[in-house]
Amino acid sequence: VSSLSKDPATPVSAIGERGLIERIRRRLPQPPPSLVVGIGDDAAVVELERGTLQILTTDAMVEGVHFDRRYSSLFDVGYKALAVNLSDVAAMGGAPRLALLSLMLPDAITENDIDALLDGLVTLAASSRVTIAGGNITRSPGPLIVDITLTGSVKPRRVLTRGKARAGDALYVTGAVGAAAAGLGWLRDCGQGPTHAPDDEGLAECVGRYRRPEPRSRIGTLLGRTRTANACMDLSDGLGDAVRQLAEMSRTGAKVEAELLPVPQAALAWFAAKGLDPVRSAVAGGDDYELLFAVSPRRTRALKAIVAQARGVAVTRIGHLVDGQDAALVRQGRAEPIPEGFAHF
Amino acid sequence: VSSLSKDPATPVSAIGERGLIERIRRRLPQPPPSLVVGIGDDAAVVELERGTLQILTTDAMVEGVHFDRRYSSLFDVGYKALAVNLSDVAAMGGAPRLALLSLMLPDAITENDIDALLDGLVTLAASSRVTIAGGNITRSPGPLIVDITLTGSVKPRRVLTRGKARAGDALYVTGAVGAAAAGLGWLRDCGQGPTHAPDDEGLAECVGRYRRPEPRSRIGTLLGRTRTANACMDLSDGLGDAVRQLAEMSRTGAKVEAELLPVPQAALAWFAAKGLDPVRSAVAGGDDYELLFAVSPRRTRALKAIVAQARGVAVTRIGHLVDGQDAALVRQGRAEPIPEGFAHF
Repeated sequence: VSSLSKDPATPVSAIGERGLIERIRRRLPQPPPSLVVGIGDDAAVVELERGTLQILTTDAMVEGVHFDRRYSSLFDVGYKALAVNLSDVAAMGGAPRLALLSLMLPDAITENDIDALLDGLVTLAASSRVTIAGGNITRSPGPLIVDITLTGSVKPRRVLTRGKARAGDALYVTGAVGAAAAGLGWLRDCGQGPTHAPDDEGLAECVGRYRRPEPRSRIGTLLGRTRTANACMDLSDGLGDAVRQLAEMSRTGAKVEAELLPVPQAALAWFAAKGLDPVRSAVAGGDDYELLFAVSPRRTRALKAIVAQARGVAVTRIGHLVDGQDAALVRQGRAEPIPEGFAHF
Repeated sequence: VSSLSKDPATPVSAIGERGLIERIRRRLPQPPPSLVVGIGDDAAVVELERGTLQILTTDAMVEGVHFDRRYSSLFDVGYKALAVNLSDVAAMGGAPRLALLSLMLPDAITENDIDALLDGLVTLAASSRVTIAGGNITRSPGPLIVDITLTGSVKPRRVLTRGKARAGDALYVTGAVGAAAAGLGWLRDCGQGPTHAPDDEGLAECVGRYRRPEPRSRIGTLLGRTRTANACMDLSDGLGDAVRQLAEMSRTGAKVEAELLPVPQAALAWFAAKGLDPVRSAVAGGDDYELLFAVSPRRTRALKAIVAQARGVAVTRIGHLVDGQDAALVRQGRAEPIPEGFAHF
């Protein structure tokens, strides 16, 4: 296969599927020996780890739904498509292993576009030790879609589900809440291209969190391996949604203290400037890809040891689980229903 | 979650993501105990089989590219979305295990549509012993997309790749060649809806092969387990493409005898009536999802034993691999280049 065109702005429709697969293969690092059959056959074949369970997850980035090329570069899109899957594996307490890349490409996509997308994907795959084992490429008559399936491994009895927390457990969240929503808000208002960023440093960080969320892989693995959390999930659809789901599946209620929430000052200021309720906006906002988890008070010391190994990722106690079934946001002593999450439909 | 609407013609956008996930879960059979965590958490968690390698493949059905709702029902689409992945696992010599379902839904899709799609998927999953372990649902601003990732298992040294055939091996194909292309041709000309079919029985069978290909799972597994084939791949992009790829990856040439090809009479007649070269049309036509495989002459007896267990699936010798690098179609003693495959771009 040597059908790579000389002009990198050539639409990929002119290269053909096999040329494109070859182009992708060349951009990937040498796979490990555990990948018995890699890209280019009917399917990938891999050696399995002994004594572990396998995690399987899939998440898609759809143009016009999950990203907009006016706000995110294709590097960002490739990066984030893997990040959101890494976040799911982290939320199960596992370590990521292999990815399958399913690409659906509009006719106007160029080789340069594909290269940028792959660069984003490969950059995060390398730092996460994920092998891209195979995938599929097809034409899309509509949006650009990057659909990734990720496998991971986790020891039996170390799996972090959503449903095993108990009333009395403290609720913690990693990183910041509402940052991505504020970042996206700024992009919708002021974004002048996929690399444009605000002058304000705090708000620029929010935009960065929206474009390239940092999956909490290390802390998720540590929480599972040490059996420190009773339940865990990621915040893809917002903190409010995550608290509701974790509490519902654990058959508990929840109380989240507004004053404890790690919402960046820049995000609070942005929401306020837009005439929005800053706290509710942060709690309802999607795309944060942080972890929410429940820890029994008996395990507080174990959690401290994990935080010490978390390489600077903040871990904040934001409330606790209670008897009953109400998920409440408590502000200045008064409880209100916690906001619903981001609705995909 | 009890947000299922009472009117099944309601657009799914009105049910919401969680209502839809619950609806899907209810339509699935009880999962096996090896599925440790199923639908409804951040990811699926599964027990692995000992002593096997894992096969991983992904293939998408995109509306307007791979299917048209004027020609195929949503039952057909759900069925075929799994069938094309089963075909890839069969082509590696493996047994299918678990599927992840990634759905991208236009706003106008109704609950009835989803039910039909799931019925098709679940029907084939049940007969193939595939567990639907999880997936993802999101909105699509354009086409309906059903993207499936399938896992399978295969014993080490039983993997059927494309690249280990040798000059002198005979080439075989399962089932019929060109049937799906003739069926699609008829649908484009005469199709008056997703259940409309030709009066002619042979042509109706071609339309059926296009709408619901029968993956050759059993014969693929047998070919791998018994180490009867040196190489194998499926015909998704046409016999011509498959012969070229198998020969290229095995560093051989190939000779396919036109007179031996199992092209249905009805397909030959259809292509001829359209003024097309019937044999080249059959060889170039995509969507057959049969298996092409290479067998050393020493293994002919082993192949006969497999055919006896293949439950009526035809296996036809169509030519052999030769030294060199030309893939030829031989007609009445004269060699011509074998047609290229179906181009996705």
